[in-house]
Amino acid sequence: MQEVAILGVGQTAVREQWDQSIRQLAVTAGRAAMQDAGVEKVDAIYVGNMTSGNLNQQMQLGALVADYLHQHGAEAVKMEAACGSAGSAMRQGLLAVASGELDVVLVIGVEKMTEAPFKETTAALTTAADADYEIIHGVTFVGLNALIMRRYMHEYGYQRADFAPFALNAHANGAKNEKAMFQKPISQHIYEQGRIVADPISLFDASPIGDGAAALLLVPASKATKAIRVVGSASATDTLAVHDRHDMLWLKAAEHSVQRAYAQAGVGPNEIDLFELHDAFSVMAALSLEATGFAERGQGVRLAQEGEIFPNGRIPICTLGGLKARGHPVGATGLYQLAEATIQLRQQAGDAQIPSAKTAMTQNIGGSGATIVTHILQRP
Amino acid sequence: MQEVAILGVGQTAVREQWDQSIRQLAVTAGRAAMQDAGVEKVDAIYVGNMTSGNLNQQMQLGALVADYLHQHGAEAVKMEAACGSAGSAMRQGLLAVASGELDVVLVIGVEKMTEAPFKETTAALTTAADADYEIIHGVTFVGLNALIMRRYMHEYGYQRADFAPFALNAHANGAKNEKAMFQKPISQHIYEQGRIVADPISLFDASPIGDGAAALLLVPASKATKAIRVVGSASATDTLAVHDRHDMLWLKAAEHSVQRAYAQAGVGPNEIDLFELHDAFSVMAALSLEATGFAERGQGVRLAQEGEIFPNGRIPICTLGGLKARGHPVGATGLYQLAEATIQLRQQAGDAQIPSAKTAMTQNIGGSGATIVTHILQRP
Repeated sequence: MQEVAILGVGQTAVREQWDQSIRQLAVTAGRAAMQDAGVEKVDAIYVGNMTSGNLNQQMQLGALVADYLHQHGAEAVKMEAACGSAGSAMRQGLLAVASGELDVVLVIGVEKMTEAPFKETTAALTTAADADYEIIHGVTFVGLNALIMRRYMHEYGYQRADFAPFALNAHANGAKNEKAMFQKPISQHIYEQGRIVADPISLFDASPIGDGAAALLLVPASKATKAIRVVGSASATDTLAVHDRHDMLWLKAAEHSVQRAYAQAGVGPNEIDLFELHDAFSVMAALSLEATGFAERGQGVRLAQEGEIFPNGRIPICTLGGLKARGHPVGATGLYQLAEATIQLRQQAGDAQIPSAKTAMTQNIGGSGATIVTHILQRP
Repeated sequence: MQEVAILGVGQTAVREQWDQSIRQLAVTAGRAAMQDAGVEKVDAIYVGNMTSGNLNQQMQLGALVADYLHQHGAEAVKMEAACGSAGSAMRQGLLAVASGELDVVLVIGVEKMTEAPFKETTAALTTAADADYEIIHGVTFVGLNALIMRRYMHEYGYQRADFAPFALNAHANGAKNEKAMFQKPISQHIYEQGRIVADPISLFDASPIGDGAAALLLVPASKATKAIRVVGSASATDTLAVHDRHDMLWLKAAEHSVQRAYAQAGVGPNEIDLFELHDAFSVMAALSLEATGFAERGQGVRLAQEGEIFPNGRIPICTLGGLKARGHPVGATGLYQLAEATIQLRQQAGDAQIPSAKTAMTQNIGGSGATIVTHILQRP
């Protein structure tokens, strides 16, 4: 299997982008990645997206984006794994280059969510969970995560306020990222005043939806010796429904995919300099830290309280705002994480730079832990 | 790049399956392919599907199917390219095995369309075309194909009745396939009485939607020396909107993908013993025959009139009914084509068997020619 490098990066800001259609967002990010790489022609385009059928009445995003990037003839397809769509697109792009058949592959994550009525958006997001056995009971996607957070608090003896460091870190870091949706730090007091969305999840424990696109251009590492390398890539699944898990406080798919990725890269948690994890909800950030070996079971929140997730901590997370502050255009998020990790490893993160970062990890989650895609990137 | 073989095949009948959910359909076909291959554990599952978000309120089919096939831990993702979804899933499954990283990959195409109100189904199908520049004008997907057929008739001097052989062949062949939706031959008279759906497309020029799933199990050819091999695989795109094409009567994406597949396989049209093409509409069958080199431009209909597309003709098409008679569960169709081609090459097609078939080609189309995926299979 051929090693793969990231030759180009592109991203739009995450906003309510009323003046940009889904095709414009995807094309802007895709073209930026191609220009960054100095490439005019690609062999394939993989588009990660979740809700375009429901919210934009547009499927066939692969062909659409290829068309508007003037890449007629290239192969193209959309990949979907709920909020893990873009990480999955990256995974397939990597396999395609690794196969030796395709040399230049563009992976784009895009989502356009703020144009539809809010009720439709909420309904579209529930399609990430089990329609027949979860959603039919009237629970929303936030509701499912609220059950997990409540159980976490009960099992390990935490209060709501204990989760604050995740939001504080994300918002402090987002303030250094001009592409972030929210660029204002928050205080513990503001966190604690947060309006409850689905008890115990408050506004500051949930990530905001948004419109945006991020893209990477992949080539064989042998053709780009100075580019950031993908040294680990793995994806794994768990039961779709939360109630089917033996342990709803353990992200088995995260454990499976990270173990494979660590083995491929020949590293462990100690070698990871920063971790772009999937903080769709604060409790998910805690569970990710535990399943990937940065904290013992039940200690993810403690790790955050000890400040170890901050830029100068043992394992900086959400270094450019994470889902919480950069925003969560669901099917694009996985590629925002990868784009940000690449920017960090290139030492181009400005005020948000993690000094001398050499190895970065990203983890993109689809559903409430059903699909988890892990990538490990390294500076050559 | 590693050669890939098809070790297992599974399919459900195409019907209005009121008693089967989308998960049941996918799991039934997937399990059948695994049993056929004698395999209990897979590394990855790629699910081709178009409308599950809109019609079944269920995304995350990859994780869902992995869950219900008891393949927790396996990686899984849904692939979408409108009616070319399943062919695209096959293409990605092939690249994954070819990369050398994954050894056992299950590809499933599934679609559950008949439960939603008909109006919603029609709306879901229009998402295959350009929402902003085609559908906004009120045209349906059938309407777009009617424009193409009308232009074909005008340009090359055909009448509606001239297209009859495509429907006659499909229905005659479907009568020999117990999994087909329609198993009754039709006459020229019946064809000509066909109710107009979108002038000049009649009921017998359009394929019926349906519920169904088909699956293949892929492994490295080195591990299954007696299994059917995939000797050619390519996918290409053209403009999404029909009005953006320089020539709406030439399937450029078909030409691009078939040329690559011919080159990989080291064959040309003369070596193909049967061709499972994408006869979503009669005119698409004609255009496919032309773009792949079986007929000169404008001569696809003539080839059919001369009987060369029948089982004993020069290039048998739709040997088990095609989209027209087997039925067209849109995102599953590409894998029905591949399953049927495999069955033919295994000499297991019963009354529909094409004698001594050694090389078969399949072509799956997404949108009105925007995504076209070609595969060439060979008996070892």
